[in-house]
Amino acid sequence: MGMNMISVEVLRIPTNGPGDVSGLMRLIEAGKIAPSSILAVLGKTEGNGGVNDFTREYAVATLCQALSRPLNILPRAVEEKIAFVMSGGTEGILSPHLTVFTRTEVTDIGREVGNAGTGKRLSVGIAHTRDFLPEEIGRKVHIEETVKAVHAAMRDAGIDDPSDVHFVQIKCPLLTSERIEGAIDRGCKVITTSAYGSMGYSRGASALGVAKALGEISGDVDENLVLKNWDLFSSVASASAGIELMHNVAIVIGNSARAISPFVIGHALMRDALDLSTVLAALKSVGLNLEDGSMQERLINIFAKAEASPNGAVRGFRHTMLDDSDVGSTRHARAAVGGLIGGVAGNGALYVSGGAEHQGPPGGGVVAAIARCSV
Amino acid sequence: MGMNMISVEVLRIPTNGPGDVSGLMRLIEAGKIAPSSILAVLGKTEGNGGVNDFTREYAVATLCQALSRPLNILPRAVEEKIAFVMSGGTEGILSPHLTVFTRTEVTDIGREVGNAGTGKRLSVGIAHTRDFLPEEIGRKVHIEETVKAVHAAMRDAGIDDPSDVHFVQIKCPLLTSERIEGAIDRGCKVITTSAYGSMGYSRGASALGVAKALGEISGDVDENLVLKNWDLFSSVASASAGIELMHNVAIVIGNSARAISPFVIGHALMRDALDLSTVLAALKSVGLNLEDGSMQERLINIFAKAEASPNGAVRGFRHTMLDDSDVGSTRHARAAVGGLIGGVAGNGALYVSGGAEHQGPPGGGVVAAIARCSV
Amino acid sequence: MGMNMISVEVLRIPTNGPGDVSGLMRLIEAGKIAPSSILAVLGKTEGNGGVNDFTREYAVATLCQALSRPLNILPRAVEEKIAFVMSGGTEGILSPHLTVFTRTEVTDIGREVGNAGTGKRLSVGIAHTRDFLPEEIGRKVHIEETVKAVHAAMRDAGIDDPSDVHFVQIKCPLLTSERIEGAIDRGCKVITTSAYGSMGYSRGASALGVAKALGEISGDVDENLVLKNWDLFSSVASASAGIELMHNVAIVIGNSARAISPFVIGHALMRDALDLSTVLAALKSVGLNLEDGSMQERLINIFAKAEASPNGAVRGFRHTMLDDSDVGSTRHARAAVGGLIGGVAGNGALYVSGGAEHQGPPGGGVVAAIARCSV
Amino acid sequence: MGMNMISVEVLRIPTNGPGDVSGLMRLIEAGKIAPSSILAVLGKTEGNGGVNDFTREYAVATLCQALSRPLNILPRAVEEKIAFVMSGGTEGILSPHLTVFTRTEVTDIGREVGNAGTGKRLSVGIAHTRDFLPEEIGRKVHIEETVKAVHAAMRDAGIDDPSDVHFVQIKCPLLTSERIEGAIDRGCKVITTSAYGSMGYSRGASALGVAKALGEISGDVDENLVLKNWDLFSSVASASAGIELMHNVAIVIGNSARAISPFVIGHALMRDALDLSTVLAALKSVGLNLEDGSMQERLINIFAKAEASPNGAVRGFRHTMLDDSDVGSTRHARAAVGGLIGGVAGNGALYVSGGAEHQGPPGGGVVAAIARCSV
Repeated sequence: MGMNMISVEVLRIPTNGPGDVSGLMRLIEAGKIAPSSILAVLGKTEGNGGVNDFTREYAVATLCQALSRPLNILPRAVEEKIAFVMSGGTEGILSPHLTVFTRTEVTDIGREVGNAGTGKRLSVGIAHTRDFLPEEIGRKVHIEETVKAVHAAMRDAGIDDPSDVHFVQIKCPLLTSERIEGAIDRGCKVITTSAYGSMGYSRGASALGVAKALGEISGDVDENLVLKNWDLFSSVASASAGIELMHNVAIVIGNSARAISPFVIGHALMRDALDLSTVLAALKSVGLNLEDGSMQERLINIFAKAEASPNGAVRGFRHTMLDDSDVGSTRHARAAVGGLIGGVAGNGALYVSGGAEHQGPPGGGVVAAIARCSV
Repeated sequence: MGMNMISVEVLRIPTNGPGDVSGLMRLIEAGKIAPSSILAVLGKTEGNGGVNDFTREYAVATLCQALSRPLNILPRAVEEKIAFVMSGGTEGILSPHLTVFTRTEVTDIGREVGNAGTGKRLSVGIAHTRDFLPEEIGRKVHIEETVKAVHAAMRDAGIDDPSDVHFVQIKCPLLTSERIEGAIDRGCKVITTSAYGSMGYSRGASALGVAKALGEISGDVDENLVLKNWDLFSSVASASAGIELMHNVAIVIGNSARAISPFVIGHALMRDALDLSTVLAALKSVGLNLEDGSMQERLINIFAKAEASPNGAVRGFRHTMLDDSDVGSTRHARAAVGGLIGGVAGNGALYVSGGAEHQGPPGGGVVAAIARCSV
Repeated sequence: MGMNMISVEVLRIPTNGPGDVSGLMRLIEAGKIAPSSILAVLGKTEGNGGVNDFTREYAVATLCQALSRPLNILPRAVEEKIAFVMSGGTEGILSPHLTVFTRTEVTDIGREVGNAGTGKRLSVGIAHTRDFLPEEIGRKVHIEETVKAVHAAMRDAGIDDPSDVHFVQIKCPLLTSERIEGAIDRGCKVITTSAYGSMGYSRGASALGVAKALGEISGDVDENLVLKNWDLFSSVASASAGIELMHNVAIVIGNSARAISPFVIGHALMRDALDLSTVLAALKSVGLNLEDGSMQERLINIFAKAEASPNGAVRGFRHTMLDDSDVGSTRHARAAVGGLIGGVAGNGALYVSGGAEHQGPPGGGVVAAIARCSV
Repeated sequence: MGMNMISVEVLRIPTNGPGDVSGLMRLIEAGKIAPSSILAVLGKTEGNGGVNDFTREYAVATLCQALSRPLNILPRAVEEKIAFVMSGGTEGILSPHLTVFTRTEVTDIGREVGNAGTGKRLSVGIAHTRDFLPEEIGRKVHIEETVKAVHAAMRDAGIDDPSDVHFVQIKCPLLTSERIEGAIDRGCKVITTSAYGSMGYSRGASALGVAKALGEISGDVDENLVLKNWDLFSSVASASAGIELMHNVAIVIGNSARAISPFVIGHALMRDALDLSTVLAALKSVGLNLEDGSMQERLINIFAKAEASPNGAVRGFRHTMLDDSDVGSTRHARAAVGGLIGGVAGNGALYVSGGAEHQGPPGGGVVAAIARCSV
């Protein structure tokens, strides 16, 4: 009798704007993607990545609209069925694109055993928290609900061992002037009255939730340590805050013995924004290297976090990202880390996301690579 | 009888702000730098690198003021004696700093011969054009005067062979609203009525002047090809436009048989913003490589140009730098290329300058490295 | 026998974001607006108003989607039926909103005669040009096609006398990197290779088309005078460039003897950004003044153009808008003029649009007011 | 026996850049300003007004350098002798300029009595606090030291009655990455780890110090109410944060019976950014009005505060200033309020300063006018 196996596919699709879904629709029309198998879409859109970056919600709205017809459900139901995470900001050489993950269950015994024999393969799982109240963002309940969602997403991906988890993307909410006013009117205290500042708290609490879920930190996490104790971090978390939701979405990406995909994922942890050797190590973990000519053919995408080192310096040299009142530090950091990783990857359609609070050590962050297995 | 030899020293000094000259003054007070030997100062300051980047003129004013006393001349005379080139914009991991070049003539036969025997060494020469009228900027006379200045600076550096020239920094003027109005009032036509746009024309004409001076392009250069024909370029030119001057300053940096400096310079030409292998080649040309542990000890600085590829894509993937109305494309490009080179160099105190019109192929540019010779 | 009369209504609806159509939909559901009567929607959205301002196309996409159901046509058909003009940029006190114009034909003799007897009333007409090629933008054909569209829109509005036209909104295209590359690949020459710069040429050519159509300038307009001869302008034109279309849409708003609306429009011409007395004059032309307490009740909206004076000064005092490489001059100008008009109007939900090339004298522009007639 | 009287002059001088002191020097050379009589200089410079606005320190450095010679003291001593307050940000129609206040003591009985008889006249007084530690900024000691400085400055101005104080300018420090790191290294807790955010705390604490000093709020001010309780405010305070100092400078401007200046100052309190009638009231308080043709001749300058209403709306209409991650809300607010006041004043060389925390009601602020007395 066949065991239930997970078949995962992953495709990277360039876009011509936040409202461009033509590449995805062409693949669906060509039969390359079965709409019903789409599990998650991680995208980079070309907004500022800040509070008023509407390219994220515009992209999601357009995707929901476009997939509504082939899925034969309402646009709103598409958003509930598929996990969409749009990360704003394609600074420097970064290039807007979508990464589409599909998943189907299969029971063909022969292929499974063969694949299982050659090792664990790429799998993906997702889960949602409940909606948060504005005053909950960045606080204990935000962390704890994230822990539960990560565990649920691991089960969904067929991953038992935390060391098989290589990238956990969290989409989390932020505070707007309106939400802040609403909370204050109800007599509640939000963690910060700065909309931009709330993005950091939301990402930080989410990352600590991932760290706790994966056993990277033990015991309870004091909510007062969010954005305070930088020694606490997850080495696989990536959190993006967006105006378009009030809950967290957790997407766990790792390798599973139950997966029969032709892909594999690996990661390494950049200790700062200049950490070229770690980028090379992440590629090596999936069998790729600069000299080998198969990079462009086998590399699907790289997923990385970038941030301005909070102590104002990188390897002892002062940076000016945090004191720049014209350009947000997240834009600076994505541009710089994107430039470095792009030089290694040979292209700019990479998922480099800003705001790495508690996602790796201060100034550093995860760099994960998905590659097609060599044959 | 001893031949006249050139002794060049080069030091990189971090700064804490555009008005910070404390590092330089400490070195002078400690006897490490003889003020009278200072020939040129290339700096990165933390402004936006655009029209209203006053950090450049502030830095120069402060340097002139500070050096006025030890040199015992008026601040204005300091600016005439020393070539100051401040490039605005330390995006991403780039770190504000000054690179100070000193030069003295020496006649000690023994040392010279020895050094000459081991090959050509770092030398620097400078020259100025006359002041330009606003309507001349970006036009034929701008190109032709630059040709003369580059030739004069080569002679000053003791360099005869254009292939020994590895980096030519041009500081050039830009148009402001006031200068544009002034020209129009005199019945003259400026090349563009956009202040920001004029920076590109000024850099472009300057670069074509370098290319012609070094024989990289032959025959007359049609002024109508400035910012039009991207096939015309110099592979060693770097031009920065600044509000603080109305003439061009040419600084030629190369290797000379007449130099006895302990340093050497080399360069390579990045074909695009992702060209990691060329960055490695530039370092290799001065005997450095990633694996060798002597990089931090021997590398003095890297001088590079960055620009957003004018065709809107890098290696076939769309970038969004040119369509960003919030952040200028020069800021994007410096951040990205700075991130890449910084990852190789291991620090961010690098001279990465934006706006590479006719300075290398479209989207690419020179990357030059100065290193201490290994012993 | 009843003459065919035009019944025009106009409503201003605040929005909570570029994708917010809830206010409009509530009015439709409440029977206050008949979807089939909607002729034009002019909106202010909260993007940067520049090249990469996707809030405009996002707003239009959402409106088309939302109106698709009640109109029972495809979203694409909604965009053909209704003229949508979204102007990006709500700097300072400006507040995002939609102004919805509805129009129906009526034949009730009694009311018409009565109204006609009391004077001309608000009417609106629209027309489209054909799609332009990238290389046509800002050139002669762009001007000439606009002339035709304005004349067609006047006929559509039932306005014969150009002096009854008080505001002509043109939505026009811009060049993107991609469109520029496409033209160059076809061997064609675009008017500028700067995406941001193309917005000015497109608005300028459109405005000169309006001026010619209304007899404000006579004879042929030389395309070389676009953005060159600032003496040529329309005193009622308002042009907004957007990435989402390749043709011009002309919306003529004026007073017509054939209209029976309870509204009237008037205008005056600001000579610079400080021209408070002209703002007051525009309000006076529709019967409103500061002292009269009926302003908030009777004023529907104000439609104005703002721009940074191209000579770099306002009334002899230097401004810094054109030399600011961090914030575009159109953002500065909208903020300033919005602040002035808002102080008079008593609220910020005003249609103040940037980029006033050939729309009024240099640094000035039209200010039109729509008010409910007093009874 | 003659009583000691205060003779105050005030001049407004346009500048061509942050380093331009030529206007001031020409007045000194022409004998119009006695250098030794210069008490305070309030200027608007054209930076972003944020953390990395170096135009403020550049302007002050240049002024100190330039005045060093005629005063025959070192530049550093000039900064101790004269109170310089540079407010960054000339958005919209605002125009860079300096307002120079001179003061001399005179004893001529006849003129004094005459003047005193016609009422109180413009007087100015200044005082400094001690340097603050980074961790003191925005806290109780910051408030209390400001109280003392305001009282000292009132005595210096010859003003006893708080109701004669019409404008109190405070220059206060901000936190930089470096200062924050320094405090943390010493085991101290700064009020915020955001450099930009610290500007608000510093301005807020300073304003509450002014309010307490003038009896506008009674009793002790709880430091926890800074940036929390917006009901607490001063109606004459204006605070500007700058990177160039670590203490507060208090400049009290009012009318004094001991002053014989030909000028008078008055003020009113704008309740929001649209409060045109209050701007008119402030002018009326010094005998000026729109209809009277003497405005341009008699108005010296207007001093006002601007801020984005913290509740996200102005008179019920949503604004987008606080959610804009591209342009800081202080830039938006200065542009808008500058536009309104400029329309009334008829020019843009006005001292409109951003960041009005506890300086007037939320979204509002002081507007003070200095006018030459009519004869």
